[in-house]
Amino acid sequence: MIRIPSMLLEQAVEELSRLPGIGRRTALRLSLWMLKQEPENIKRLGETLIRLSSEAVYCSQCFNISDDLVCSICADPGRDHSVLCVVQDVRDVMAIEQTGQYRGLYHVLGGIISPLEGIAPGDLHIEELLDRLQNNSVNEVIMALNSSVEGDTTTFYIFRRIDRPGLNITTIARGIAVGDELEYTDEITLGRSILNRIPYGK
Amino acid sequence: MIRIPSMLLEQAVEELSRLPGIGRRTALRLSLWMLKQEPENIKRLGETLIRLSSEAVYCSQCFNISDDLVCSICADPGRDHSVLCVVQDVRDVMAIEQTGQYRGLYHVLGGIISPLEGIAPGDLHIEELLDRLQNNSVNEVIMALNSSVEGDTTTFYIFRRIDRPGLNITTIARGIAVGDELEYTDEITLGRSILNRIPYGK
Repeated sequence: MIRIPSMLLEQAVEELSRLPGIGRRTALRLSLWMLKQEPENIKRLGETLIRLSSEAVYCSQCFNISDDLVCSICADPGRDHSVLCVVQDVRDVMAIEQTGQYRGLYHVLGGIISPLEGIAPGDLHIEELLDRLQNNSVNEVIMALNSSVEGDTTTFYIFRRIDRPGLNITTIARGIAVGDELEYTDEITLGRSILNRIPYGK
Repeated sequence: MIRIPSMLLEQAVEELSRLPGIGRRTALRLSLWMLKQEPENIKRLGETLIRLSSEAVYCSQCFNISDDLVCSICADPGRDHSVLCVVQDVRDVMAIEQTGQYRGLYHVLGGIISPLEGIAPGDLHIEELLDRLQNNSVNEVIMALNSSVEGDTTTFYIFRRIDRPGLNITTIARGIAVGDELEYTDEITLGRSILNRIPYGK
């Protein structure tokens, strides 16, 4: 381990190396880079991070990150308030928004059920989702969790808990990515894409 | 480019993606990770970076980063004050200290001469080095800059400026790295290692 000749530098390296994917060597490189910057720039960086962490607000309806109590998506009257898309976290909202293909609302669970990581249904925004689904103006819920064991378990758990006759429950399509070649696709994905085939021209 | 639904998050991503080697996607991942941490931890991170940037001190003798006006190396009476090792930056001091093979002092230039990047001799701590070399208690200066065009230029510039008869001027040995195989060594390094051969048993 590299001995660092200054307490201030040592502390900065220690704090930065706590970040995910940043080791001690990268932390040292970043710290030395910061030493060469104008102090006002680093002050702005530090204060921005502190503000993000202490002042960030989540939408009271969908739990997306937001600047207000109701996020800009939930507050938009031009969006389809009868469809909710259930996702794991904020990044998934951004990814779906990026496609420009979805005009409904979201519900961010804040994670997925994972006994290994100690995440139980009570740690997620599942009760709030069930409350929202009591509202009869919602007529479809799209489950868009990752297709891992945990994701599938969470989807199934929510499916079993939903108790509203007439509500459409769908999941996003799994299949071969656009542009991918059949022969290189794993057999589970290829198998599912055949089972879940759709009428041509749709 | 991903649209980010919160101003606070957007600002954090923008600030983090200014760091070297960190793009927008990594900055977003780091920001979302920070949102999940205790605010007090992120406060400590931010304040540590601000303190590093505004309070870091450089040794008044060798320009190594330091907590005091004279760094712990320059202040150590157990080290050999008759030898100075000239390096480009603080990281090189750490790398050489790491070897445990050097007991002299350092002189950190703070960069190397690079017309392309607009770094002139006056931007580096060269005059301070020449001042230190006027002290007759110094009898050897070891040039330990990288062997690039800029490094060699800087070494040569300093060599020409040193005006003290009797001072030993040396450079660190270039050669085949310990453990490397001859046949895979580039010809310049191999050539130098033959020209600069040393008596066996030394």
